[in-house]
Amino acid sequence: MAEEVILLDFWPSLFGMRARVALREKGVEFDMREEDLSNKSPLLLNMNPVHKKIPVLIHNGKPVCESLIMVQYIDETWGPESPLLPSDPHERARAKFWADYVDKKIYPALRTTVGEAEETAKKEYIECLKVLEGELGDKDYFGGERFGYVDVSLIPFYSWFYTLETLANFSIREECPKLVAWAKRCLQRESVAKSLPDQYKLNDFILSSRRSISLNK
Amino acid sequence: MAEEVILLDFWPSLFGMRARVALREKGVEFDMREEDLSNKSPLLLNMNPVHKKIPVLIHNGKPVCESLIMVQYIDETWGPESPLLPSDPHERARAKFWADYVDKKIYPALRTTVGEAEETAKKEYIECLKVLEGELGDKDYFGGERFGYVDVSLIPFYSWFYTLETLANFSIREECPKLVAWAKRCLQRESVAKSLPDQYKLNDFILSSRRSISLNK
Repeated sequence: MAEEVILLDFWPSLFGMRARVALREKGVEFDMREEDLSNKSPLLLNMNPVHKKIPVLIHNGKPVCESLIMVQYIDETWGPESPLLPSDPHERARAKFWADYVDKKIYPALRTTVGEAEETAKKEYIECLKVLEGELGDKDYFGGERFGYVDVSLIPFYSWFYTLETLANFSIREECPKLVAWAKRCLQRESVAKSLPDQYKLNDFILSSRRSISLNK
Repeated sequence: MAEEVILLDFWPSLFGMRARVALREKGVEFDMREEDLSNKSPLLLNMNPVHKKIPVLIHNGKPVCESLIMVQYIDETWGPESPLLPSDPHERARAKFWADYVDKKIYPALRTTVGEAEETAKKEYIECLKVLEGELGDKDYFGGERFGYVDVSLIPFYSWFYTLETLANFSIREECPKLVAWAKRCLQRESVAKSLPDQYKLNDFILSSRRSISLNK
């Protein structure tokens, strides 16, 4: 039986990007289906009845939800010759810790910064990025020489940097030069380049979403 | 070299309980060190410099932080003959999904319910528990016949049920009879019975913490 791999997604989604990058790293062919989030498809509601959110990976009819769990699933299911997570349990736990940090700290700080562009939110966001810059250090990737799990988890956020810098008036390159160099290194990979949207297109989308949110208030 | 396993913990911690249960399920001897959270030890600050939170598992000098990551680490490191996570990637992803649900939905709803005891918070908490009751269904444990990862993730919350019922004036047994039967089944395991605090002692602690919080306002 041929494998059927469907990704229910929405192009500006940071979490969708993670799944796209991981699938492409593993060379998995997939059918990306764009969801209309104001009118979710019966397939989405059926496959993720608990959260009703994208992305959802459907592999031979079975759903996998939550982007970090999805990246782990992809890593365990395809391409064992190019693992995303390290094999050593302690190194695995460490990679999971940093991906969790991205979800717990970087994502909420991003939302606050884009939503309010206040000085305190901006400072907090930069502090969180600097923690990651410290963890990266002089390594090529978070795991060392190979692109891996933490890179997949964080790289989607780079597509929002342009908007953040414009809205909040600061330079991520000046604050975190190593992190920006790392992002450019990641973007040389086809898996990443194909999965992240154009930053100007994304910027237009974010600005128009903010306008419609404030109009609806 | 003999293994050195230290758990930096605080007895009422739901997340600490997860680590205790998992270690005892695997038959790992460990040194549980009670932290004073108002005066954290240099060891805690050194081992978890990012979040500065308990629990922290220190295995032969190396730290593992974040309770669900810790349970996965414990599962990968000890006792492969009694795994907590299933071996099938899809089943693994499913178990991780439900443990993530506990963190994202049950924990925040618990905090709100204990903090406010408002009708909406109470309803939301019950709704979330009912989602879990539905997932459990007529199975002995969340993974089927064997005690596993989702059970470890959720069972600590049972120790707060008495306080919740008293504060918010509702009966979890009436709302979710299968979940309460499951919890009692789990408590027959030595690993769980030894790791969860007495519910009355915990209740006294929660009530006195609430009083000191409102006095400090």
